Amino acid sequence: MSDEQQTFYAFNPATGERLEPGFREASDVEVDAALTAAAEAFRELSADDAPPRRGHALLLDELAARIMDLGDALLERAESETALPRPRLVGERARTVNQLRMFANIARDGSWVDAVIDTADPARTPAPKPDLRRMLRPRGPVVVFGASNFPFAFGVLGGDTASALAAGCPVVAKGHPSHPGTSEMFARAARAALASLGYPAGWFTLLQGRSPELGAGLVTHPATTAVGFTGSLRAGRALFDLAAARPEPIPVYAEMGSTNPLFVLPGAIAERAEKIAADLAASVLLGGGQFCTKPGLIFTVGPDDQRFVQQLAQKILSQPAVTMLNQPLRDNFSRQIGAVANVSGVTAVAGAGGQSSGFAATAPALFETDSDTWREEQKLHEEAFGPASLVVRCASVDDAIDCIDSLDGSLTGTVHIGAADADASKQVVRRLETRVGRVVVNGYPTGVEVNDAIVHGGPYPATTDGGFTSVGSAAIRRWARLIAYQDTPDDLLPPALRNANPLGIERTINGKRTRDPIG
Amino acid sequence: MSDEQQTFYAFNPATGERLEPGFREASDVEVDAALTAAAEAFRELSADDAPPRRGHALLLDELAARIMDLGDALLERAESETALPRPRLVGERARTVNQLRMFANIARDGSWVDAVIDTADPARTPAPKPDLRRMLRPRGPVVVFGASNFPFAFGVLGGDTASALAAGCPVVAKGHPSHPGTSEMFARAARAALASLGYPAGWFTLLQGRSPELGAGLVTHPATTAVGFTGSLRAGRALFDLAAARPEPIPVYAEMGSTNPLFVLPGAIAERAEKIAADLAASVLLGGGQFCTKPGLIFTVGPDDQRFVQQLAQKILSQPAVTMLNQPLRDNFSRQIGAVANVSGVTAVAGAGGQSSGFAATAPALFETDSDTWREEQKLHEEAFGPASLVVRCASVDDAIDCIDSLDGSLTGTVHIGAADADASKQVVRRLETRVGRVVVNGYPTGVEVNDAIVHGGPYPATTDGGFTSVGSAAIRRWARLIAYQDTPDDLLPPALRNANPLGIERTINGKRTRDPIG
Repeated sequence: MSDEQQTFYAFNPATGERLEPGFREASDVEVDAALTAAAEAFRELSADDAPPRRGHALLLDELAARIMDLGDALLERAESETALPRPRLVGERARTVNQLRMFANIARDGSWVDAVIDTADPARTPAPKPDLRRMLRPRGPVVVFGASNFPFAFGVLGGDTASALAAGCPVVAKGHPSHPGTSEMFARAARAALASLGYPAGWFTLLQGRSPELGAGLVTHPATTAVGFTGSLRAGRALFDLAAARPEPIPVYAEMGSTNPLFVLPGAIAERAEKIAADLAASVLLGGGQFCTKPGLIFTVGPDDQRFVQQLAQKILSQPAVTMLNQPLRDNFSRQIGAVANVSGVTAVAGAGGQSSGFAATAPALFETDSDTWREEQKLHEEAFGPASLVVRCASVDDAIDCIDSLDGSLTGTVHIGAADADASKQVVRRLETRVGRVVVNGYPTGVEVNDAIVHGGPYPATTDGGFTSVGSAAIRRWARLIAYQDTPDDLLPPALRNANPLGIERTINGKRTRDPIG
Repeated sequence: MSDEQQTFYAFNPATGERLEPGFREASDVEVDAALTAAAEAFRELSADDAPPRRGHALLLDELAARIMDLGDALLERAESETALPRPRLVGERARTVNQLRMFANIARDGSWVDAVIDTADPARTPAPKPDLRRMLRPRGPVVVFGASNFPFAFGVLGGDTASALAAGCPVVAKGHPSHPGTSEMFARAARAALASLGYPAGWFTLLQGRSPELGAGLVTHPATTAVGFTGSLRAGRALFDLAAARPEPIPVYAEMGSTNPLFVLPGAIAERAEKIAADLAASVLLGGGQFCTKPGLIFTVGPDDQRFVQQLAQKILSQPAVTMLNQPLRDNFSRQIGAVANVSGVTAVAGAGGQSSGFAATAPALFETDSDTWREEQKLHEEAFGPASLVVRCASVDDAIDCIDSLDGSLTGTVHIGAADADASKQVVRRLETRVGRVVVNGYPTGVEVNDAIVHGGPYPATTDGGFTSVGSAAIRRWARLIAYQDTPDDLLPPALRNANPLGIERTINGKRTRDPIG
């Protein structure tokens, strides 16, 4: 490979301008060096005489502070690489920093390890009962793939990295190739944070590149113990397949987007069609329609849904063209909605999705079809990543419920109900909850809270395993394995399991949750 | 296929006698019927108007009662199919019944769903905070593969089935083909229990057969949502690979056995060599050495370990021949220890593992080698399922610790220490905990408690994912997925998440654990 081939650049999606500097495609040697260093760092910090780090809380707080210290330079670079508007980036930065601080607090408290202690009973018959203590411990080096659509919150210091660091795992992050400058700024902040706290440099490494071989090398490296990914179904599934085929398989927690079906029941249409049309249009177009939670399928129930669809179309049509995150994404979106428009039985009710002015720009689009056509055409079940949605008009509530069984797994499912929909809404919710990771009633799925109760997950193909979430405090569980200690002397136990409870964490002792010491 | 080919029999491993009746190999049609019925039953019992079943606790209790009602007939059939001694089977039955009752209590309490509620804050800026409530819900139909070595506790109504039923999943179980009569008695008890409680028959189905195609058909059926397996690495990995290659991948929780390394440090040898030799010999030979937790690798540290090894050899040599669970297992064991004996640098210090009197009988065997030979020969790292163990003599504690890094993942790792081993024991435990799911100090890994703190899991190849356990209350987590409800009216929420807390479960509300209602 020549030097030229090994260098790639970001492009400004609004202008097409090539942005300096070039970034070097990481080599196999760098992959091996990064993961070997991560494994060594993990081993070093797991040693008995390693300095106590209170769950890496200081590191997470330090990362948050240093991201803020990057100031406007970070916003400017991200804006030029993604065309996302400044207020959005300011908001996303706050979310990213809050997320790091949330995980700092989780790490500082330490109770996430779910310590469970069943004390001994030497008098038990027929055999004495041993002392058993279990907890969650970090798996080891984690590989994180940054997403294109949230350069901060799902970027190289986003939720996957924050939760993995809080679990005590070192991270090798691959930046998304459409915003390498943004990723590099984060990595610089991370390197400074590690150095200032005396961490081994291998605790966090950024690798950049565009080639599928780079991703494959990261997932198949022997030192990698788990993978976090946010992106397309095609790429996520490819990494999942590679991980499953390893001599030692490892989990790939891939969040691969979804169609996020949204149902508008007749009572809701009767009560507030215009308000729903306006808010729904805003949700479809939020972030240029480039949210994994964008409502991509809108099921309406007749006979009075015609006006609602027209109102929705007007709201969407009145919106300006969207500059998408990068040109390949825009081209892919154009192809996808072109294919949708070509399905017999599908009508374009707003926009045509054709190319608009601007380098990676596209007009918002809304399509309409009937439930029979939708059920029959697999093409209409796929996510179109961009500012478009498809209205599926159903003849009745039963028809709409029947559609639920044909839905692929989704991150979210939304139902808009009115007073007249009491019975129907129950049926819809009970069916819809089997196909999604989050049910929303009378709201919109875009805008994902980062807290204890959120689930950003769902049945395949929304994710590779609906048992987990990639957002919120529960995301930490992905990076941990279970281990028990039997009849182990106190000084040989990890601090979390010692009698005195030196970390002061909440534990379950003989079935009772407490922060008390034992004995 | 002729009728003859479609029928198979159990054999008495002690006598070689063919046991009546014949059992029919389940067909593809039966696989489809069982999983379709399971999916329909799951749907039926998830419906809003399904009778409340309080987490299927009654079913689990009923199964326990009906297993006891099978009386001596169950023990007799199991004895004839497995050659396991009656007292062992009585003990295993108690364990199985206790396990079902433990999961009944977990289901009855209901708190396992880990309900987390973050209430709304309409006044929050810049955006109002929605009401979010998450919980674990059953994945759907689960396929369970029964193990050969625990016909009750890891059989078709064993821990995998008990935990899946407690999670609210219907089960299709494949009985191990070496004890089909035992499995059929359990299935009859289960069918009667389902009928007596008004369950759809599809909630539990037993399928029998020997062919790999049957297992493959169960794992690849579209209605299957997760798989539990206990058995060999070869079979478990094959099922894992099939599940990962499905259009919709599903988790396979396979527990595939392990070598269970056990370290005897110099201080322990100095203090109580003879006692350890006796107890360790008993642990190696427990259940004919056919435990997944059998110590198969014994690391001793010189220079004074020679006498200990001799004492251990004497204890093992003095034991009678073992009748193994079936002839293929015995033949495989003979091949494996023959290969171990042929490695240059390995000495047989007790028994030769040759064929003994009795149809599926074998003599216990103990081998010895040095740490260099062990590190170099991959063959010596594999589990030999049966009454044998390999002593690896290490020159020093550092040499023993170095061996840990060459260990494959194991269910357990044990360390015997004395007063003189204070420093060494810390180093050994800190390294060993990275390779195992359970650390045991001054005890033996055989004998697995069934409680809240147990972990029966571990890094690959002990299991397919060290994040889970297949024994104890935490095993239920495997069968559940995460779901959140956002701004959902109380009457549309599952009971576990409603304001009034009608189930009285423990929940986390705005960060505080409580059984209180909201508002």
